[in-house]
Amino acid sequence: MNAELISVGSELLLGQIVNTNAAFLSQELAVLGVNVYYQTTVGDNDKRLTTTLEQAVSRSDLIILTGGLGPTKDDLTKETVAALVGKKLVHDEKSLHTIEAFFQKLNRPMSENNRKQALVIEGSQVLSNYYGMAPGMVVSTGNVKIVLLPGPPQEMKPMFTNELLPLLSNMLGEKTPITSRVLRFFGIGESQLETDLLDLIEAQTNPTIAPLANEGEVTLRLTVKHSDTSEQKRLLDETEKKITSRVGQYLYGYDDTSLMEQLFLHLQEKNCTIATAESFTGGKFSAMLTSISGASSVFQGGMVSYSTDVKENVLGVSNDVIKQHGVVSHYCAVEMAKCAKEQFSSDIAISFTGVAGPSEQEGKEPGTIFIGVVGLTPEPLHFDLRLAGSREAIRDRAIKYGCFYLLNEMKKVE
Amino acid sequence: MNAELISVGSELLLGQIVNTNAAFLSQELAVLGVNVYYQTTVGDNDKRLTTTLEQAVSRSDLIILTGGLGPTKDDLTKETVAALVGKKLVHDEKSLHTIEAFFQKLNRPMSENNRKQALVIEGSQVLSNYYGMAPGMVVSTGNVKIVLLPGPPQEMKPMFTNELLPLLSNMLGEKTPITSRVLRFFGIGESQLETDLLDLIEAQTNPTIAPLANEGEVTLRLTVKHSDTSEQKRLLDETEKKITSRVGQYLYGYDDTSLMEQLFLHLQEKNCTIATAESFTGGKFSAMLTSISGASSVFQGGMVSYSTDVKENVLGVSNDVIKQHGVVSHYCAVEMAKCAKEQFSSDIAISFTGVAGPSEQEGKEPGTIFIGVVGLTPEPLHFDLRLAGSREAIRDRAIKYGCFYLLNEMKKVE
Repeated sequence: MNAELISVGSELLLGQIVNTNAAFLSQELAVLGVNVYYQTTVGDNDKRLTTTLEQAVSRSDLIILTGGLGPTKDDLTKETVAALVGKKLVHDEKSLHTIEAFFQKLNRPMSENNRKQALVIEGSQVLSNYYGMAPGMVVSTGNVKIVLLPGPPQEMKPMFTNELLPLLSNMLGEKTPITSRVLRFFGIGESQLETDLLDLIEAQTNPTIAPLANEGEVTLRLTVKHSDTSEQKRLLDETEKKITSRVGQYLYGYDDTSLMEQLFLHLQEKNCTIATAESFTGGKFSAMLTSISGASSVFQGGMVSYSTDVKENVLGVSNDVIKQHGVVSHYCAVEMAKCAKEQFSSDIAISFTGVAGPSEQEGKEPGTIFIGVVGLTPEPLHFDLRLAGSREAIRDRAIKYGCFYLLNEMKKVE
Repeated sequence: MNAELISVGSELLLGQIVNTNAAFLSQELAVLGVNVYYQTTVGDNDKRLTTTLEQAVSRSDLIILTGGLGPTKDDLTKETVAALVGKKLVHDEKSLHTIEAFFQKLNRPMSENNRKQALVIEGSQVLSNYYGMAPGMVVSTGNVKIVLLPGPPQEMKPMFTNELLPLLSNMLGEKTPITSRVLRFFGIGESQLETDLLDLIEAQTNPTIAPLANEGEVTLRLTVKHSDTSEQKRLLDETEKKITSRVGQYLYGYDDTSLMEQLFLHLQEKNCTIATAESFTGGKFSAMLTSISGASSVFQGGMVSYSTDVKENVLGVSNDVIKQHGVVSHYCAVEMAKCAKEQFSSDIAISFTGVAGPSEQEGKEPGTIFIGVVGLTPEPLHFDLRLAGSREAIRDRAIKYGCFYLLNEMKKVE
C-alpha cells in the first residue's frame, strides 16, 4: 500500500506553524509497513487542493489529509473532497451532540460557526473527535481511500491512534510486516560513523541501515522485512552486534529515548538522587529531567545560580575560587556541584558553568563550558568542553554532554 | 513570483525528523512578497525527485530544494538536478578548501566521502556554507531558478539569510511589496476571537485578517499590499485599532515575540529584578527566561524546589503552611515566592506549585496550579488555575499564564 499525505493550511505555506503532523503520520505508517512517497502542503485554496488531490488519487492507494476542518471561513477541505468524489455534506448528529456538550462543559457560549464542524461527507465513515470538535472521516473513490483528519495535533493524534489505526490494520490484512529499530549515538559525527560502517551499510539489505544526524546526535535506523517476528528480531540483533563491535562506545539507547531519559532510568535503577547547580543552562537541565514523569524519585531540587553573586552568596561557592579562577572555570564547576550536593542532600550533583554567548565572559569565548560532577567517585570530576553554535544550541549540547558523561561515569564505577 | 519548496530526505518521509526548513523558508519568502503555493517532501529517490522537479519547473518561477547535499551514499539532490538541467558536476575549489579547513579546526581526520560535498553543478552560482561543509547553489533552466540548500537547519538558515537573500531581493526588483503584522493574543480562544471580529474579518481585504490558534495562543495575521511603506503602516494601524477596540485586553505583543520576551523587556525597562521558585515547572520558567540573551540584567537566580523537603528545608517555606494547606495551595505558592525574593535579594519573585500529572497529588487533580507573586504590590498576589492537557502542556501553559498575569499586574501598578 502506497500512501501520501496532504497537509492543508495557508498558515503552513506562510510558515506560521511547523508541520509536525506529517512527521507523526509518516512514522505511524512506516510502522504499519505502508510506504509514504510524498508529503504535500497546499493552502486553503479550492483549485490547488483539487489539483493536488487528483494527482494523489492517480498514484496512491491511501491519501491522508490534515487540516481545514475547523469552524472558520477559510476551512474548506471537506467541501473540496466532497466535490471531488461527487457527494454532498450532511449534518452528523453524534458530532453535533459532541460539539454542544463540549461548550457546555467549558461553560462557554457556542458560536454559530461551530455547527459547521458537524458537517460530514455523505456516506463517509465518521471518526470521532474526543479532544476537539471537528470529526474526521474516511471516504472511498474507486480503490482509493481518502482520510480527513483535523489539523491541531492534540486532536489529530488520538483520532489517528484510536479511530483510524484499527481501520487501517484491518484494510492491510496479512502483509509482510516491516519493523525498525533505531540505534542512538552521541559523541561521534555522521561522516565518521558512516566511514566506520561503510561496508556494512552497502552490503546490508535486510535489515537496511540508514544514518541520520540531528541536534548533535546520530541515529542508525535498521529496517527489517520478515513475516516472522522472532526472525525479525534475530536479523536486527545480528546487525546491531556487527555495528556495536565497531562503534558501541557511542551507543546510548534505542528508538525514541533521549540521553536525559537514559540518565533518569539509570539513576532510578541505582536508587541514586541527583541535585543540580546551573549557571548558563539556566535551569534547563532540571526542566528536562522533570519533564519525565516520575522524576521525583531521583530529583529533589536544584539551584539556578545565574549571577556570580548568587553563586557565592546563595549557593556557597568560595570567594577564593571565584577570585582566583573566575566563574568560567572547572574549579568553579566543581565547587558548584559540591555546594548543590550539600544543600539538597543528594547522592550526586551536577553543575554547569560557562559562556553561552553571544558575548564573551571573563575573556573566554562563547562555547567554553565546564561541567562538574561530585558524589560519584572519591574525587570530584569535571568535563571541559568547547562547543560551537548559537546560544541555545550551546546550552542544549552542553546538557547532552552532561548526561552522556554522567551515564558513562556511572557505568564505569559499577 | 511564485515559489515552491521541495524538501528531500527519506528521514522526513519516515517521520524521523520534523520539517522546520519549510516553515522557515515560507516565512522568509512571505516577507519578500513571494507566494509559496506548494511544499513537497520526497525521499532520496532519483525517479520521484525528478518527477517532482519537472512538475515544479512547469508551474513555479522559483524552486528551493533543501537536503540531500551531504557526504553519504543516499544524498543525490545535486546529481538529480544536474541531470535535469543537462549539466555535469565539478569540484568547487573554494568549497573544498572550506571543508579541509573545517576538519583542521575540529582536529579530526577528514573522511574521503567529504570530498563529494565540494562537487557543484557546472555553471551554478555557489552559495558558501560557513556552518557546515556542503555548499549551496543556484541554477537556471529557462526562466526558472532552482536553488539547492543543505538540509541541516543550522547550515541552511544562515546560508539563506547571508547568501541567497541578497540575490533574491535583486531578482525581485520593484514588485508591490506585501507586509504582515502579527498580533498575538493570550487568554481567548480562536472561535471566540473570530466571533468577536467576524464582520471585520469578512469585510477586510487590504489588509486581510487571518486567525490562527497555536499552543494556547491565538494570532491574527494582518497582510497588506501597497507600494508605499507609510501607507502600508497607516492601513495596518487602522485595522489594528478596530481590532483592539474589541479584544485589546488579550493582545500582548507583535510578530515573533513571546510572552516571556515581553515580560523580560518589561522587567528590563522598569529596571526590576526577578527571582523564581519552581516546583512542577522544574526550572522551565528560568530556562526560558535565560534563553533570552541579556537575561542577566533582570535575573540573578532561582530555586527548583521540586520535593516538599526542599521547599521546607532549603527554600524555607514554613512547616505550618505545608501542614495546614499542603504544597498544592496558594498559601504555599505565596510562601515560595517570599522565600525566593529573600534568598535571591530580588525586587520581585514568582513561584509555581501544582500538579503536572499524570497522577494526582494531595488529592488534587492534574492541572491544579497556583502561581505566587511578591514584591509588586504591598500584599502578595496569587493566581489559581485549572488547566487541561498532557504533563508538558500543563507546564508550558502555566508558564505562559505566569508571564501574562505578571505583565498585566506590572502594567496595573504603573
